Amino acid sequence: MVYVIKVGGNVIDNPALLEQFLTDLAGVPGKKILIHGGGKIATRIGDKLGIESKYVNGRRITDAETIDVVTMVYGGLVNKQIVAKLQARGCNAIGLTGADANIIPASKRPVKEIDYGFVGDIATADVQTAPVKLLLDAGLTPVFSPLTHDGKGQILNTNADTIAASLAIALSAHYPVRLIYCFEKKGVLQDASNDDSVINLITRSSYQRLLEEGVLTEGILPKLENAFAAIESGVKEVLIGHANDMQRNTTEDVAGTLIR
Amino acid sequence: MVYVIKVGGNVIDNPALLEQFLTDLAGVPGKKILIHGGGKIATRIGDKLGIESKYVNGRRITDAETIDVVTMVYGGLVNKQIVAKLQARGCNAIGLTGADANIIPASKRPVKEIDYGFVGDIATADVQTAPVKLLLDAGLTPVFSPLTHDGKGQILNTNADTIAASLAIALSAHYPVRLIYCFEKKGVLQDASNDDSVINLITRSSYQRLLEEGVLTEGILPKLENAFAAIESGVKEVLIGHANDMQRNTTEDVAGTLIR
Repeated sequence: MVYVIKVGGNVIDNPALLEQFLTDLAGVPGKKILIHGGGKIATRIGDKLGIESKYVNGRRITDAETIDVVTMVYGGLVNKQIVAKLQARGCNAIGLTGADANIIPASKRPVKEIDYGFVGDIATADVQTAPVKLLLDAGLTPVFSPLTHDGKGQILNTNADTIAASLAIALSAHYPVRLIYCFEKKGVLQDASNDDSVINLITRSSYQRLLEEGVLTEGILPKLENAFAAIESGVKEVLIGHANDMQRNTTEDVAGTLIR
Repeated sequence: MVYVIKVGGNVIDNPALLEQFLTDLAGVPGKKILIHGGGKIATRIGDKLGIESKYVNGRRITDAETIDVVTMVYGGLVNKQIVAKLQARGCNAIGLTGADANIIPASKRPVKEIDYGFVGDIATADVQTAPVKLLLDAGLTPVFSPLTHDGKGQILNTNADTIAASLAIALSAHYPVRLIYCFEKKGVLQDASNDDSVINLITRSSYQRLLEEGVLTEGILPKLENAFAAIESGVKEVLIGHANDMQRNTTEDVAGTLIR
């Protein structure tokens, strides 16, 4: 099994959470890949550099100055600090962007109503699994920052969830893959007001039942739809759970919600 | 032959020179590694972030704020832009620091008269060649930024010339290696006032003769001493030449000075 693990900015931004998370990750045996989000540090550094965060209709725009900041901060500072911390824990990490070894080619999002700027959309069929397989089979742990490239020399900003799903789908041609999304809840809840009411297993048929029963909150629906989409594209299992439970969520005795 | 090529900040800082250099590099057939210096951009971004460059006795100090800036700028912005530009030229580059895959472990320089801060000294015997060999043999071109790590979670700043020499020496156990230093002259000059008086070949015996004749300027002596030190440690050949001549300097018909 290969574990493709996405961790978000909330963990990256919290030093104590991050240290524990990396200790847990180093303790996961076997093949694993980490994809990290950015966190607020890029905004903080952008602010200090006098680069304003730009939004159109509430959507963030990645202009030329901003792509340089996220390349620095996500691809350099955040990524390499995670690598150094994993190395200190005996985990042989290697920090990458989607430009490295051409692993994740992307297309600059076409301008329609909104020009998102230097944002990359991935065609999963373009993901290059050979270099990832080479690294995994050599015992290395690839750590991806949320960056891709257009093959014409331009780095692009790409959502970390999307990178995780694309890598998981592409690698499913070679390995059974569990795609793990770490978020701020323990998993999908039976009762939204009770954090301990985690549903540990959801299948296509139990999902239909949960939908009919009206158990699921609106926030969780897109995550579940994405999970089933990944499974339909070949991913063996998707897990949604808390970053603190990540290690347990790589076992059969999950704390979060396993979707398969 | 593996070409281990170091290019300095003067090329990194000059967009036209850099574009041409990367086109030339992509045109070099076979196994090659690039090590890039930092350039002035880290100072410029550090200035904008309000981080003062600190010097003691004329030596630059890498304090905690500065190591974060160089990790961002060298390990992120400069490194990943080079990778994306090489990919656009059909060269399958992969951007790394010495922390990645634990390739270049280092020790924080001990504090004596001067505390250099987060500067890493390399013991060449510690360089991990297995991951570099894995990448080279898979047809990838590793691109190193001038960063190492202490194995305890800390990124360290290390001179790019030193990284190039350490990689060249370590890889000499597996391949014949030509270590190429790109600098601002065409090579070692017979006549310091004539840029076209390049000496194309220097051996240990001709070096002695040049020393006795007083032909060599003081600036070139440390470079030649380092070159012979690398050769004594197993590197097949060292080449000193201009960045513009890099491609020709990977052939037998060199434009610069070949030392062997």
